[in-house]
Amino acid sequence: MTASDIKIDQLSKVDSSDAEYLISRIRSIPDFPSKGVLFRDYLPLMADAKGLQVLMNALEAALPVPADSFDAIAGLEARGFLCGPILAARLNKGFVAVRKAGKLPPATISESYTLEYGQASIEIEDTAVSPGQRVLIFDDLIATGGTAQAAARLIARSGGTVAGYSFVMELEGLGGIEQLGDYPCSSLVTMPA
Amino acid sequence: MTASDIKIDQLSKVDSSDAEYLISRIRSIPDFPSKGVLFRDYLPLMADAKGLQVLMNALEAALPVPADSFDAIAGLEARGFLCGPILAARLNKGFVAVRKAGKLPPATISESYTLEYGQASIEIEDTAVSPGQRVLIFDDLIATGGTAQAAARLIARSGGTVAGYSFVMELEGLGGIEQLGDYPCSSLVTMPA
Repeated sequence: MTASDIKIDQLSKVDSSDAEYLISRIRSIPDFPSKGVLFRDYLPLMADAKGLQVLMNALEAALPVPADSFDAIAGLEARGFLCGPILAARLNKGFVAVRKAGKLPPATISESYTLEYGQASIEIEDTAVSPGQRVLIFDDLIATGGTAQAAARLIARSGGTVAGYSFVMELEGLGGIEQLGDYPCSSLVTMPA
Repeated sequence: MTASDIKIDQLSKVDSSDAEYLISRIRSIPDFPSKGVLFRDYLPLMADAKGLQVLMNALEAALPVPADSFDAIAGLEARGFLCGPILAARLNKGFVAVRKAGKLPPATISESYTLEYGQASIEIEDTAVSPGQRVLIFDDLIATGGTAQAAARLIARSGGTVAGYSFVMELEGLGGIEQLGDYPCSSLVTMPA
């Protein structure tokens, strides 16, 4: 499987050799985690010292809003924990961990979202976002957008505001970005679902 | 619950006001995740922009080996994904994601470890660590050391070498550090289990 179906989105904001380097290190694995799904794996990019720098420079360059327009980054467990905290530390922001249900100590705020079959919940600590705080939501991948929307509801319920959304990868044709409404969004690369 | 039972370990290598700031933002929650367990929560530290910088400066100052003696950092899902990638990016190293079984696409290397009741497995991608590569293992907490040892076996099976272990917190009296053998280890703070 080549990377030829991976398209540059906000990568146009980065050096073209860096964009090529980045795309060349995203693996496409058929039938994972289930039959018919083409899994996109950017962990080889992170395992490579140069790749990690290229990825983080690209994410920073592609931010959907200026860095001074948000105070914290909320990252979604587990893969949103990989680059989200790096981005927060680089930009001198706080990092809010959005965890799967049951992982955080009390008191928490919880929101449910719909999966293909059934429902799941995500949580933040009830002191993680301060009233008035502006939060950028980060995840590695946007598909249908259900988890990202649930994260936005958590931030709103904490009294914070959503500054925008940043993703590494966007799966096309699932309407995920449209589901997020009018918030500024960016993804580094787009690819067929 | 005060933070008074939290002791400075390698925090002695950092500015004392930073050490106090760090300790003051670790919450102790009784009976989580189960009765009788005192859970230590450093997420409030990460949610705070200053706290995150203080934490990362302290982790870097406390590294058990010089930064030029390793090539990559391996972090354990999920909480080792929070600070491990930041440390890797700051030090210009690669980051190796050590995931729970079934999360990584093939091909993977897997190792089991013993839990209080039963067993669990962790995995890395089989190309994540190159032969000869020197890897620092990072996690947020060392308790019995079972997961950290399993991570070390994954690195050895990949042909890499373990450069040492870095932790945020160490639970005393569980013999975790002793289980890791002669490898250089550091933890920022120690506390009763």
